[in-house]
Amino acid sequence: MIMSRIEARRDEAVEAIAATGSLTGRLLAGLPPEAVLTDPDVTAAYSHDMASFCPAGAPAVVVLPRTVEQVRHVMRTATELRVPVVPQGARSGLSGAANASDGCIVLSLTRMDRILEISPVDRIAVVEPGVINADLSRAVEEHGLYYPPDPSSWEMCTIGGNIGTGSGGLCCVKYGVTAEYVLGLDVVLADGRLMSTGRRTAKGVAGYDLTRLFVGSEGSLGIVVRAVLGLKPKPLAQLVLAAEFPSAASACDAVCRIMAGGHLPSLLELMDRTTVKAVNDLAHMGLPETTEALLLAAFDTPDPAADLAAVGALCEAAGATEVVPAEDAAESEMLLKARRLSLTALEAVKGTTMIDDVCVPRSRLGAMLEGVERIAAKYGLTIGVCAHAGDGNTHPTVCFDAQDEDESRRARESFDEIMALGLELGGTITGEHGVGVLKKDWLAREIGPVGVEMQRSVKQVFDPLGILNPGKLF
Amino acid sequence: MIMSRIEARRDEAVEAIAATGSLTGRLLAGLPPEAVLTDPDVTAAYSHDMASFCPAGAPAVVVLPRTVEQVRHVMRTATELRVPVVPQGARSGLSGAANASDGCIVLSLTRMDRILEISPVDRIAVVEPGVINADLSRAVEEHGLYYPPDPSSWEMCTIGGNIGTGSGGLCCVKYGVTAEYVLGLDVVLADGRLMSTGRRTAKGVAGYDLTRLFVGSEGSLGIVVRAVLGLKPKPLAQLVLAAEFPSAASACDAVCRIMAGGHLPSLLELMDRTTVKAVNDLAHMGLPETTEALLLAAFDTPDPAADLAAVGALCEAAGATEVVPAEDAAESEMLLKARRLSLTALEAVKGTTMIDDVCVPRSRLGAMLEGVERIAAKYGLTIGVCAHAGDGNTHPTVCFDAQDEDESRRARESFDEIMALGLELGGTITGEHGVGVLKKDWLAREIGPVGVEMQRSVKQVFDPLGILNPGKLF
Repeated sequence: MIMSRIEARRDEAVEAIAATGSLTGRLLAGLPPEAVLTDPDVTAAYSHDMASFCPAGAPAVVVLPRTVEQVRHVMRTATELRVPVVPQGARSGLSGAANASDGCIVLSLTRMDRILEISPVDRIAVVEPGVINADLSRAVEEHGLYYPPDPSSWEMCTIGGNIGTGSGGLCCVKYGVTAEYVLGLDVVLADGRLMSTGRRTAKGVAGYDLTRLFVGSEGSLGIVVRAVLGLKPKPLAQLVLAAEFPSAASACDAVCRIMAGGHLPSLLELMDRTTVKAVNDLAHMGLPETTEALLLAAFDTPDPAADLAAVGALCEAAGATEVVPAEDAAESEMLLKARRLSLTALEAVKGTTMIDDVCVPRSRLGAMLEGVERIAAKYGLTIGVCAHAGDGNTHPTVCFDAQDEDESRRARESFDEIMALGLELGGTITGEHGVGVLKKDWLAREIGPVGVEMQRSVKQVFDPLGILNPGKLF
Repeated sequence: MIMSRIEARRDEAVEAIAATGSLTGRLLAGLPPEAVLTDPDVTAAYSHDMASFCPAGAPAVVVLPRTVEQVRHVMRTATELRVPVVPQGARSGLSGAANASDGCIVLSLTRMDRILEISPVDRIAVVEPGVINADLSRAVEEHGLYYPPDPSSWEMCTIGGNIGTGSGGLCCVKYGVTAEYVLGLDVVLADGRLMSTGRRTAKGVAGYDLTRLFVGSEGSLGIVVRAVLGLKPKPLAQLVLAAEFPSAASACDAVCRIMAGGHLPSLLELMDRTTVKAVNDLAHMGLPETTEALLLAAFDTPDPAADLAAVGALCEAAGATEVVPAEDAAESEMLLKARRLSLTALEAVKGTTMIDDVCVPRSRLGAMLEGVERIAAKYGLTIGVCAHAGDGNTHPTVCFDAQDEDESRRARESFDEIMALGLELGGTITGEHGVGVLKKDWLAREIGPVGVEMQRSVKQVFDPLGILNPGKLF
């Protein structure tokens, strides 16, 4: 009795939604009604990620599948009807790669959020794409394991999104980026076929490395529905040191000395004066505002105090005015919290930010920071810089008032000039945020016409109809 | 006077070679005569790598360019004349990936052997493809740096070959494989165009990861003419422990305990009884022949003795009958030398070997070794196993007399059965040697029909005429 009532209600819902168009009708043939959203007020919430200045359209429908078979149904439907599909995780991305286009299917993978397997012997986890980064990190930690990639958004971002954008984080200077940890994938292709790539073994070279091709491809080649991730043993607790510098240049000099000295810090981060002040303003952290640049270094080695002492000496040799090792884990965590707050704090300065993501060879980090200062002065803007300094990965963050048209224009121009500077210094326009919509005009400048042609041809192989996240990357 | 004599001789040489056909004539238009070899006795030496049972044809010509421009000329010529090109490094490969096909151009990159740059701050080296692995390792060591990938052939193999096959080695359990260290490439495409991929920065996600697509592609997508390689700081000296086990199963159990215990050995290798005996017979190393399996573990940590003690205890818990830490670096080196001699020693057993390269999840290593023993008994063959046990990467090595037709047939059949077993256990047919000619019938069994179709389509993008190392991989 209850069952038939539920079924009757389900049928009503199906009919109601099917009436809104053949697309939703077709989708509902393979998806439960609660997985198909068409109310424009609801779907609007799925229209964009966290990037500024990126156009976003209105999706025709948002689908929230729970199974691989449902994803295949969505892609088969999209192929049949030639409807663009925009895959999404938590929409915490910073390049507009998850932005909807008008009339598209938004394919949200957030409900495919199961951790399928954790193996301490094989040091792998098998997960669905919607698993939250922090949930995975905590789950593997219980097994004495460690999933390193830790973007600032780790409490909300998904593994699928991390794979799509090729995320980094604070850990990368020692542990590398997402690409290093993706061993194998199950991918639903544009036409709904299922392809497995890679392996669940520590090594493997059977055929072309399509796994790595998908990492950072922003959902433009297929839909990742399952990932085999490599894990590390859980490291020892890290101890953090803070060093104050009289100039960004001297802080960058310290970074070069530390890296040339053969040290392997588990974290090597930089906050410039603007960022330090913003963090203090937001959270009253008591960071030293007289400093021009604050460097945070950490070690998770057996004797972190000794390593910090060596690094502290290098900081002093580079001109640090103050070198303060954290006394314990709590003080270390406080310093990391300050660093993680940087982007939020900079956003509070003027209401809106454009966060750049230029990565340069670390030997050019000083030139990069000096150039950003010059650009900020030229455009009369506040540009705070926090950086994964050990990787040469800077996040110059333009703070502006979006209501102020002239300031907005200057923000956009300075943003572009920062990318041009990065390329000039032998760097890349994006270290870990991806190209998306935000930087697609710049991709060709970085990789050149032959590179663009080959990349487009590869896209064509996987997405001959051009329905997978169109308008992104190229 | 001398110059004109040299020129006269050069002209004579050009004419003589040009007369052998329009192909060589065209090649000589952009290459010096000493870079174009056509004498069949000479070119025959370039016809194959070190794999057994792989057909090899007779090259029409062998070219030895020294510059990128010369490589471009070779590829333009090959495209115009539709002649297949087989790229080669040191021909130390074990899958026939460098074997010539009849009438092909062998493109040997061995003379492009310059190390162009080593940067301790950026921790990168920029090299040409013909640089010998050991030469690079020694060169970066002088700067306090470390290039980890160390295939057994490291004293002769080239970086270009390592990139083409996606080489591994003893270091991988801690430091990963070649793919982890290739940051950017310059590639000459099939039609002679030059494409740059990747970056010289620590991180970068601008566009698809074509760099990793080339790693392990066996020269079938383009010719790598320059590589930016990531480096690590030079680690501390490693200390090695040897543990004897009464069975392969108990040694594999120890491997699992070590890895599940969160240890990070810099090396974790296994030699079975057959291998131990072969090494003793060849080099009188005095290894313990009563053991069924010898496990070598090493640490390059600040306190390797303490780490070895912990691992030694795990070995004893798994049933080790004897646990002997090396007393010093010399004793450690002796144990590694024994391990590195394994394949050569097994080759001496019956004159010929087929070296398999199956990698399984390390939790299945025991089942793999047990299965290989069963297969050896079934076919009445000697199959020695050495393994990068920490990676689950086994090298079951079939020893046979190539003059004995029946034994050769059994060798081939057992080799295939070993691959089937590896796949059954969730492994891959190749952990680090590649597919080449040897395993191309097996690739489809591993990656499935959709995978093969997509891989072939990717190949088509880069090599529409099918002139790049045809007959390999697929």
